[in-house]
Amino acid sequence: MKKTAVVIENVQPLVDCGRYAVKRVAGQTMRVTADVFKDGHDVMAVIVKWRKAGTKLWSEAPMFPEGNDVWSGVFPLDEEADYEFTVEAWPDDYASWREDFSKRYAGGQESLTSEILEGVHLLERGAKRAGRKPEARKLREAARNLAKASRADAAALAAREDLAAAMVLFPDRSLAVSFRPLGLVMAERERALFAAWYEFFPRSAEGRGDRGSTFRDCLARIEDARAMGFDVIYFPPIHPVGLTKRKGRNNSLQSLPTDPGVPYAIGNRHQGCPHGGGHRDVAPELGTLEDFEWLVGEVKKRGMEIALDFALNCSPDHPYVTEHPEWFFHRPDGTIKYAENPPKKYEDVYPLDYHNANWRELWEELRDVILWWAERGVRTFRVDNPHTKPVSFWEWVIAETRKKFPDLVFLSEAFTRPKMMRVLAKVGFAQSYTYFTWRNTKQELTEYFTELTTHESAEYLRPNLFPNTPDILPFYLQQGGRSAFMIRAILAATLSPLYGIYSGFELCENAALPEREEYADSEKYQFKRRDWNAQGNIKDLITRLNHIRRENPALRRLRNLRFLYAENDQILFYAKATESLDNILLMAVTLDAWHPQTAWVDVPLEDFGFPAEADYQVHDLLTDERFSWHGRRNFIVLDPLTRPAHIFRLRRREAGGQHFDHYA
Amino acid sequence: MKKTAVVIENVQPLVDCGRYAVKRVAGQTMRVTADVFKDGHDVMAVIVKWRKAGTKLWSEAPMFPEGNDVWSGVFPLDEEADYEFTVEAWPDDYASWREDFSKRYAGGQESLTSEILEGVHLLERGAKRAGRKPEARKLREAARNLAKASRADAAALAAREDLAAAMVLFPDRSLAVSFRPLGLVMAERERALFAAWYEFFPRSAEGRGDRGSTFRDCLARIEDARAMGFDVIYFPPIHPVGLTKRKGRNNSLQSLPTDPGVPYAIGNRHQGCPHGGGHRDVAPELGTLEDFEWLVGEVKKRGMEIALDFALNCSPDHPYVTEHPEWFFHRPDGTIKYAENPPKKYEDVYPLDYHNANWRELWEELRDVILWWAERGVRTFRVDNPHTKPVSFWEWVIAETRKKFPDLVFLSEAFTRPKMMRVLAKVGFAQSYTYFTWRNTKQELTEYFTELTTHESAEYLRPNLFPNTPDILPFYLQQGGRSAFMIRAILAATLSPLYGIYSGFELCENAALPEREEYADSEKYQFKRRDWNAQGNIKDLITRLNHIRRENPALRRLRNLRFLYAENDQILFYAKATESLDNILLMAVTLDAWHPQTAWVDVPLEDFGFPAEADYQVHDLLTDERFSWHGRRNFIVLDPLTRPAHIFRLRRREAGGQHFDHYA
Repeated sequence: MKKTAVVIENVQPLVDCGRYAVKRVAGQTMRVTADVFKDGHDVMAVIVKWRKAGTKLWSEAPMFPEGNDVWSGVFPLDEEADYEFTVEAWPDDYASWREDFSKRYAGGQESLTSEILEGVHLLERGAKRAGRKPEARKLREAARNLAKASRADAAALAAREDLAAAMVLFPDRSLAVSFRPLGLVMAERERALFAAWYEFFPRSAEGRGDRGSTFRDCLARIEDARAMGFDVIYFPPIHPVGLTKRKGRNNSLQSLPTDPGVPYAIGNRHQGCPHGGGHRDVAPELGTLEDFEWLVGEVKKRGMEIALDFALNCSPDHPYVTEHPEWFFHRPDGTIKYAENPPKKYEDVYPLDYHNANWRELWEELRDVILWWAERGVRTFRVDNPHTKPVSFWEWVIAETRKKFPDLVFLSEAFTRPKMMRVLAKVGFAQSYTYFTWRNTKQELTEYFTELTTHESAEYLRPNLFPNTPDILPFYLQQGGRSAFMIRAILAATLSPLYGIYSGFELCENAALPEREEYADSEKYQFKRRDWNAQGNIKDLITRLNHIRRENPALRRLRNLRFLYAENDQILFYAKATESLDNILLMAVTLDAWHPQTAWVDVPLEDFGFPAEADYQVHDLLTDERFSWHGRRNFIVLDPLTRPAHIFRLRRREAGGQHFDHYA
Repeated sequence: MKKTAVVIENVQPLVDCGRYAVKRVAGQTMRVTADVFKDGHDVMAVIVKWRKAGTKLWSEAPMFPEGNDVWSGVFPLDEEADYEFTVEAWPDDYASWREDFSKRYAGGQESLTSEILEGVHLLERGAKRAGRKPEARKLREAARNLAKASRADAAALAAREDLAAAMVLFPDRSLAVSFRPLGLVMAERERALFAAWYEFFPRSAEGRGDRGSTFRDCLARIEDARAMGFDVIYFPPIHPVGLTKRKGRNNSLQSLPTDPGVPYAIGNRHQGCPHGGGHRDVAPELGTLEDFEWLVGEVKKRGMEIALDFALNCSPDHPYVTEHPEWFFHRPDGTIKYAENPPKKYEDVYPLDYHNANWRELWEELRDVILWWAERGVRTFRVDNPHTKPVSFWEWVIAETRKKFPDLVFLSEAFTRPKMMRVLAKVGFAQSYTYFTWRNTKQELTEYFTELTTHESAEYLRPNLFPNTPDILPFYLQQGGRSAFMIRAILAATLSPLYGIYSGFELCENAALPEREEYADSEKYQFKRRDWNAQGNIKDLITRLNHIRRENPALRRLRNLRFLYAENDQILFYAKATESLDNILLMAVTLDAWHPQTAWVDVPLEDFGFPAEADYQVHDLLTDERFSWHGRRNFIVLDPLTRPAHIFRLRRREAGGQHFDHYA
């Protein structure tokens, strides 16, 4: 027999009935909505309650009705921490009394004696609940005054907001209902949501074809990335590379003694590595652990950070193979299985068995590997193929490591089916690779980014857009040349607050293996010769894009993307604006890397707080040009060679201004 | 540290995270879907599990993949009972081995020794799990054969479905995951979903203006309702009517001694009522409790049932007022409050305080009132204004009474805000009044019924459509006359499997209070003179409608409604079909009660399994006419006086048939 007076339903946002957290950034406010109602006509008090996970005490803030029984409220996310929240509500007797009393008074009811007495009792009880707080005296005094008040005086007292405010502080919550399950929020540092990544192989830092570079050689490359405006320097695995079955150039089964091997075949204990030769070690050819720590510090000094690859592949030479053979899959004859997807064989890699009898030791070791690097200053990990390991492992290892380092950020490299990609984000990956890499047409981009920014998954899945990776050189880049690289850079940098490039992109490198979306002579397998300032590079454009991203808060949010109408299927037109509408950007990007394109576009002025027939200015942040536009319908001309896009900032004419200078 | 191998998400249907049940009818199958997937490429076994609530043992059935990681399965709802269900999944080692083995064999892998040994181990472990079951021997023998098999023989053994089937019976579930929370289903008797209600005041049974009828006078009215095809006879309150502040004709504050009073002002202990004069008693002017029980039996004999009104209003003369004054609201001076919504006063009714200090006694008493009538053969209750009582009371009282009488059906009379209406359905009301009464235009009807039949609420809210009630005579009926009554009857009877009329509707009674949607001279306040076969009645139409409803299973479902295109805003065109498509109905109803209307309509033939250019027959079940139609686009003519609607059954030409007789 459970008696409650108020119904609370549909508390939002809640992922999978509170099983998972939504993601936010510390410093933001968290908006919560709920359906709250009760039988009859009583006034209700509705609040949102929150606390840091693991603490006892709740903070509270009022919620307000929005119509149709929906209530909303906000609370601050002050810290980088996990929060819990819920909604609580109860019948507010005093507020109901005030409303009822004023209706009766206004309606001319002659005797209000009974109603006045009820008010007196409510105030007295409020005073009692106030205990020794200063409001107690005020409420008691009000009760005394009301008891002897005339009809009109009583109505005046019922109307007093100060009394109502005092009563709100000491409510009768005996009929309060609190919603369950609790909502969860993961408030992270801003870089979890807003960052530009630059990936390079440290051994390629100097761009020599004859030998690899070391950590100590990386500063120039990092300076260049910094000049372009990147925040995160992401290194593919830096660990010792296996020798057994080492792959040669272009993934050949035969390697020459001079071939450096694939950094993803991790583990080589025969080189006298001081930390075992596995995931805790660095490849001796890159330098020492001290060199790496020095580099982490240098990057940090420059306002950036290093992201490491967390790739759970073991070469046959990995120390785990001899120390913990039970962690691997075995054939009936006792030998360890290499990776296979019949008929494909990956003989240089042994997969780990996450369900082996000794799984706890394995999981704890992998956790400790993350902690090892975190203790050396690494706070961001790009995780290789997480969808081939148990989801429950990631949920556990991310939670465990974030307990010690709450600022850890994990990027999920899962190019797999949508639901697996989403659940990895739910269990704690801060960022996710996406299908962006293969979405090229207007319809594809519109559909996919509408999903990424408006589906429930936008509460927890942050897309990190990579137009290329060491494994993927899309056909569009192969065929479209420099223009295609510009177009994809602009899309990546403006469709999501998170994006990244794999180095060489800025040089428009597009030599591929025949009929495959893979790099020819990939540096995964060999040293790579490069001129980092080669002719035709798009470093200026990238620098400009990263500058625009930093200067315009509208580009620092995911869920404010909105596609707009452009009368041309080759032109993608979209807006991003801040909630306060003080920063409104319009992006018009050609998707045609070959021909000029024009379009009439429709600017939904009213939604941006402009009159429908406004005169206004669009300021192209790419070129610093300013155009005078009028009304919703305007014309644009794009050319993939010279002007692949506009990134317009909308500027409204300031009161009384007649000239361009007066647009704000 | 929680290790799982499989992810199960999004089990459907689940209402509010399993807080509430979905509603179905015993005899139906229950379809469950879930997102199920795991890391890597293993084959999974996925099952749906169910049991009657309160029992321990689960039944199981396999689920099957539908693409994009969605799995579906069904289970039978054999009994009128509450069921629980969930989804369970695990990696299926043997199925994975078969798939892997056949790939390798087909791919030409030369040595399969290791793979064969793995198969042997799997079969041996399966045999062990089979224990003393007959399959154990078969599996052990297969293991022995496999151990000495050639490459080709092993492939043949791996392909054997009988072995796979035997292995499925004894799976290794050590890595099984079971979804929580559990899903809930309330499987009710069919009349909870499919019924036609006929409401009349027993005192009006004979239609005399000078005095009321008794229970013993009701048979003729009931026979008439039966002839029209109704299933449920619904009586407004039959309890003693209060004398204090009794209302007179047309809700007047003064009543004459001859006025019978409003049956909703319940309670009158001054008439020597044998059961206290309250909710357990019958009004002496209607007869005795024995008379009522006799009537219940007579109705039952005729294949129908009586529904009672459960109206929790007390007149000042109700026995509760003296026996349990603490159950009511009190003024500071100790007097009991009557119902009020300032400035409106309802002095003939005392509302109950469901949160009074003695609330448990009150709730239990109200439960016992339901049980009292259930013990007397009543299984259906129409509940008056449930939204003015705590939702938690309904949740408790419906669950408590259904424990003893699982066939109880409650209809919620809540004309209030949408979310309150929905939560009442969630907590156990089998049926709900709706806004249908005020939805008249094509847009209104299309939007509202799309919501009622496709929103998540269609899983638990069953709309019972009343075109009129004793409280509501809509303007449309007032103004549109007989045609309007026909139109609204057709809509009510075909838009939902549940509908009802308040008597007088069949006579097209439409005398209203000026500018109000209320009956003039309402029988709520007085005896009412009526000729139950008055000129111009639409009893034939209603009889026909109820006959069509019984004969066509497509009309016995809620969620199969689909609106179709008609090129006229005054014509509503919609379809209902069974899943097997053996019963396909097309309804075309004019909404214009004044003028003839015509329309081209579009029949989505392909969706009904017809070729796009099919010749077919539409058989009007209202008139028994048959029309030959061709292709999707056809023309209809409706006339509110003579032909307000078509209810077409689609008949396909049978193979080889050339004549009308050959349409099935």
